[in-house]
Amino acid sequence: MSSEFGKNIKFSVFGQSHGEAIGILIDGLPVGKTIDMDEVQAMMRRRAPGQSKLTTPRTEKDAPEILSGLMNHKTCGAPLCAIIRNTNTRSADYKALQNIPRPGHADYMAQLRYHGFQDDRGGGHFSGRLTAPLCLAGAICRQILRSDGVEIGAHIYRIGSVQERLFDPSVETATQILQPGQKEFPVLQDEIGLKMQKEILAAAKDCDSIGGGIECMAVGYPAGIGSPMFDGLENRLAQALFGIPAIKGVEFGAGFKVAEMRGSENNDMFEKKDGKIRTKTNQHGGILGGISSGMPIVFRVAMKPTPSISRPQQTLNLQTGKQEELCIHGRHDPCVVVRAVPVVEAVMAMVLLDMLQKCEL
Amino acid sequence: MSSEFGKNIKFSVFGQSHGEAIGILIDGLPVGKTIDMDEVQAMMRRRAPGQSKLTTPRTEKDAPEILSGLMNHKTCGAPLCAIIRNTNTRSADYKALQNIPRPGHADYMAQLRYHGFQDDRGGGHFSGRLTAPLCLAGAICRQILRSDGVEIGAHIYRIGSVQERLFDPSVETATQILQPGQKEFPVLQDEIGLKMQKEILAAAKDCDSIGGGIECMAVGYPAGIGSPMFDGLENRLAQALFGIPAIKGVEFGAGFKVAEMRGSENNDMFEKKDGKIRTKTNQHGGILGGISSGMPIVFRVAMKPTPSISRPQQTLNLQTGKQEELCIHGRHDPCVVVRAVPVVEAVMAMVLLDMLQKCEL
Amino acid sequence: MSSEFGKNIKFSVFGQSHGEAIGILIDGLPVGKTIDMDEVQAMMRRRAPGQSKLTTPRTEKDAPEILSGLMNHKTCGAPLCAIIRNTNTRSADYKALQNIPRPGHADYMAQLRYHGFQDDRGGGHFSGRLTAPLCLAGAICRQILRSDGVEIGAHIYRIGSVQERLFDPSVETATQILQPGQKEFPVLQDEIGLKMQKEILAAAKDCDSIGGGIECMAVGYPAGIGSPMFDGLENRLAQALFGIPAIKGVEFGAGFKVAEMRGSENNDMFEKKDGKIRTKTNQHGGILGGISSGMPIVFRVAMKPTPSISRPQQTLNLQTGKQEELCIHGRHDPCVVVRAVPVVEAVMAMVLLDMLQKCEL
Amino acid sequence: MSSEFGKNIKFSVFGQSHGEAIGILIDGLPVGKTIDMDEVQAMMRRRAPGQSKLTTPRTEKDAPEILSGLMNHKTCGAPLCAIIRNTNTRSADYKALQNIPRPGHADYMAQLRYHGFQDDRGGGHFSGRLTAPLCLAGAICRQILRSDGVEIGAHIYRIGSVQERLFDPSVETATQILQPGQKEFPVLQDEIGLKMQKEILAAAKDCDSIGGGIECMAVGYPAGIGSPMFDGLENRLAQALFGIPAIKGVEFGAGFKVAEMRGSENNDMFEKKDGKIRTKTNQHGGILGGISSGMPIVFRVAMKPTPSISRPQQTLNLQTGKQEELCIHGRHDPCVVVRAVPVVEAVMAMVLLDMLQKCEL
Repeated sequence: MSSEFGKNIKFSVFGQSHGEAIGILIDGLPVGKTIDMDEVQAMMRRRAPGQSKLTTPRTEKDAPEILSGLMNHKTCGAPLCAIIRNTNTRSADYKALQNIPRPGHADYMAQLRYHGFQDDRGGGHFSGRLTAPLCLAGAICRQILRSDGVEIGAHIYRIGSVQERLFDPSVETATQILQPGQKEFPVLQDEIGLKMQKEILAAAKDCDSIGGGIECMAVGYPAGIGSPMFDGLENRLAQALFGIPAIKGVEFGAGFKVAEMRGSENNDMFEKKDGKIRTKTNQHGGILGGISSGMPIVFRVAMKPTPSISRPQQTLNLQTGKQEELCIHGRHDPCVVVRAVPVVEAVMAMVLLDMLQKCEL
Repeated sequence: MSSEFGKNIKFSVFGQSHGEAIGILIDGLPVGKTIDMDEVQAMMRRRAPGQSKLTTPRTEKDAPEILSGLMNHKTCGAPLCAIIRNTNTRSADYKALQNIPRPGHADYMAQLRYHGFQDDRGGGHFSGRLTAPLCLAGAICRQILRSDGVEIGAHIYRIGSVQERLFDPSVETATQILQPGQKEFPVLQDEIGLKMQKEILAAAKDCDSIGGGIECMAVGYPAGIGSPMFDGLENRLAQALFGIPAIKGVEFGAGFKVAEMRGSENNDMFEKKDGKIRTKTNQHGGILGGISSGMPIVFRVAMKPTPSISRPQQTLNLQTGKQEELCIHGRHDPCVVVRAVPVVEAVMAMVLLDMLQKCEL
Repeated sequence: MSSEFGKNIKFSVFGQSHGEAIGILIDGLPVGKTIDMDEVQAMMRRRAPGQSKLTTPRTEKDAPEILSGLMNHKTCGAPLCAIIRNTNTRSADYKALQNIPRPGHADYMAQLRYHGFQDDRGGGHFSGRLTAPLCLAGAICRQILRSDGVEIGAHIYRIGSVQERLFDPSVETATQILQPGQKEFPVLQDEIGLKMQKEILAAAKDCDSIGGGIECMAVGYPAGIGSPMFDGLENRLAQALFGIPAIKGVEFGAGFKVAEMRGSENNDMFEKKDGKIRTKTNQHGGILGGISSGMPIVFRVAMKPTPSISRPQQTLNLQTGKQEELCIHGRHDPCVVVRAVPVVEAVMAMVLLDMLQKCEL
Repeated sequence: MSSEFGKNIKFSVFGQSHGEAIGILIDGLPVGKTIDMDEVQAMMRRRAPGQSKLTTPRTEKDAPEILSGLMNHKTCGAPLCAIIRNTNTRSADYKALQNIPRPGHADYMAQLRYHGFQDDRGGGHFSGRLTAPLCLAGAICRQILRSDGVEIGAHIYRIGSVQERLFDPSVETATQILQPGQKEFPVLQDEIGLKMQKEILAAAKDCDSIGGGIECMAVGYPAGIGSPMFDGLENRLAQALFGIPAIKGVEFGAGFKVAEMRGSENNDMFEKKDGKIRTKTNQHGGILGGISSGMPIVFRVAMKPTPSISRPQQTLNLQTGKQEELCIHGRHDPCVVVRAVPVVEAVMAMVLLDMLQKCEL
């Protein structure tokens, strides 16, 4: 069950990095919704490796096959299962590592949890490759949300020490949030984007990697969706987002800044705008008491630097119990943040649709 | 279901701020564990209001009554239900606000979500008072965890612009983390704690409130607990923590700092220490791939300033559709962070015990 | 979690027979529904013991107290918790039995499952007394269902060898199903009811007990509710019904009779009646493919004879490992079927409302 | 979520009868268990059509492909996904029926539930073909259970008016229960089996179908597994079993017979046998208070006659609103009971393993 989330819609991810196939099962989608597979593939392509010198040269075709759940391109109420065959896997790259847990990876944790029976080829079920089916599912959810007037967009707001401006959370139109996704390097401010890319290339040149941050925002999401306490939008978004490997922090609205603020600054005043009840500012990030306010929903996540780096690292040989120098070869992203942008959008789409779904039969 | 969380142990919170009683139902506790109710009450007292000039003068006796689940002070396998009677409620304080949503509160959201039928007295089910049963449950879980060698502690690491040092996440003994809880103002560095208290009093004097941050850490938690993807320790802790009102951000280990780091800095090297496999540093916060590493588990949360402030605020009268000046009277904490410390510890205890529970029949 | 069921509405039962209180937590009720507590108590009274010579002389006041979830007698969206204090418990009756598991009871099973820590006074959490909170919850759900035009009724259709006629499952009006509930002995045919009562009294006179069967039917339930495979009305009703102690069989529509039938007999032909799509007959019991057809929903349950009988029984002394003669004193129903009728109705109401709830926000 | 069940292990079925593929996702299997795919296929072959004149001449190769969850034939902790490609589908057979709901089928219910968007080719997601993945999953669970000493077997105990003897529920060895599965027509008494087959052929000759009953039993299942109230073995078995199309009744142990019994007959006396605590008789069917007693677990299900019969039937044309004569062509089983035997065993295996799983990490 660990690879499942959602309440009204269940999303269950399966597969190992170097197994036969990876995929996702989606049970509970609204019915009669047309799904454009070209658009699904376009979103998956944004996540796919091998797109630029900033990402791993490993290529994945990631061509999804829908096995069930659609009829004549429309959701038919039956669970939707989609798979992506694994190809171009070079397990030999990982062979030597069996007893030498890679620092920053889950190798050793998996060993304990699964008593040594885990599929450790390429990270197995822990691999970042498992975010491909998330992208696929998110692309489906996003199309359904769009038909209800909801749009989602994300940008890289930080790489290492370089940070660009954040979304304006009080703007309720979609232009701002859709722009970054149309660029090869999804930022708001291209000149700062170039600096970010330089940071990534510098890390790569040092046989190192670098972390970063992504901001994601939805507009058009209706007010009154969510629940208090443990089933609110923040709870569910956070639970799902920490399912994306490398994420170590999640914040909503003003986020960690609230620790520094006074109530008089942080409180968003209610007002009427174009006949609708809105807040003048949006420090709350579109969610209060777990429930959507009708304002844009906005969060940021921090992603750690790729743990796979090609410079030598000290680690422990579990068999010999001795320290050992580890050199990770293989093909790795110097910065996972770039390819994670559509994944973060996808997870937001999945959660928002799930929560919205409650009111449909 | 919104007020329930947990997988192997279900925690279901109920009650409204000014209703008959609030409480919690806990189903799935390990059996045969002795529960010391004095200790439970001691933990609840740390959360209770009226303890100092830093907290609301409103007093709550918060005397819990255990209705089921114990026999001869031991868990007996049946669901444990505990209630706390509501007394000293002054509903009149809230009467006037029915159509005037308080900025920063969930009043308007609740109105939409429950079509106007919500109990709006004192925030109803959205009230911070609902954290009392969390404390109660957390105190129970904590005792059980302690019998397995797990200790949990938290401190205020920031109020407004004042920040103290963080826990050392590589220290595996409990001394460091248990200290703050024994102080009236739970910090590591008392002199900085005084500055924090000054910040709070300054805000109160300005008829305002102030936000802050809490760090929480567990030591002694076994390695190999948790699951990949959506059911890991980070997912579940985050989901539960966002159930505490006012929390707007959660980060694990190095947290948002990872965005600025290189892989070579952030990766924690494995080593053998006293015959046990450990990591030299603990940037990962004790969790990798959703699974505990055996290192201390550490996270930080950001809490927003109390939205109830006594200075006049502009808001909307939903009935007239006109702007209106709102003055909130009643008795409110200038800073919820102080009383939230045991609540954060409680939620961590609940989640850690729930996850651990998997392997007991 | 074992004492919880429901999907859109969660029903969580708690308490032990001789503990402080028993009760139920209901999370997810539709909001704004008026609950008449007199009617709730009336339904509970039908289950209460001490009503006639057919039931145990033990009296339970069973006065419920609503702790949360209502405001001004209306559901307010917050979880509803109701408790019933335990009084008039004579634990001494059970003392002697600790190591001598009563045949037909769960004593030994509980001992294994809870490692000897279970509350064994009066059956603890396994006691039939736990059906009182089910009645309470069912009475609430039933009122809400009635406001949507759904009525539920049940009758004893069999005691021992005496059987009366079944409901006519093609009648869509409520008269037929509401009648039995207004009688002290809830049957359709009073003269056969008298024979049933004779069977019960005869068993009682023999220091024995006797089993029976209950049929339950709902009319007015909308068509199209439920889901295929594991989440259909039959699945959920069956899961919940087996939660009532003593039930050993559940059948829908023609039930076990279908094993003897031809397809041409068992298939219900569709037709239009008063402009509505109906089936001419109702062998399917109102459910096809897990989904309601709009026809009355009907099932029958078989209940075993009360295991507590006062005649001497052979059993095992777990401590000595020797056979021993057991004489159960205390006050027991010679036939649990009589008091179970409102409980069966209650469980049906809970499940039907839960499933219906899906389409409300 | 409707196509999912299980608590510690989640089983999620997907696919439509005439879609690309059907399959099952299993999350939570114990790790390190060797799975013999030949044995899996052997169990699936018992369910496959086209085996004899008693079953539909339609052939399904039902060759399963494991996409994930295994490594070197061993469960590796990652979710196991298995698919079966659909071939030999003749959708034209169903085309004409779109507006003419087949009596006894879920066509009309599906139409309402999915607003006309359901995949109606061959019953879509409601098709009996979806039991193939259940067989697959059951075969996997069964192998794991066997390695723990648990064996499961079933037989047809009734077809129409012909009934054979039941399993002896007090026999704890496997011989009795494994025998029927080795025969083409799975019964205990072959001469009665011949009479059953005659009943089926007679129905087929009449362009009709016939119902029947299956009894299923497990031996070697440990005592103390399960939980009281809603999470017991009876609750979970019943919930899952009603997921098999055509099942209309489920009974445990003495089942509906308990309605006729006295307590003194129905109570099973505890005794010590070969040093183990057992009951002399097994009216309780191995489950008391929802928890296994260590005695064989036994239940019976009633299955209705195949609703698809080739004789003309009256039904309603939903479009014209007029009565119409319907002739179902296509290839259908005159009695689904024969092929359902391994499916019933499979579901029992899935539930028993799920419940047992609780105590493994």
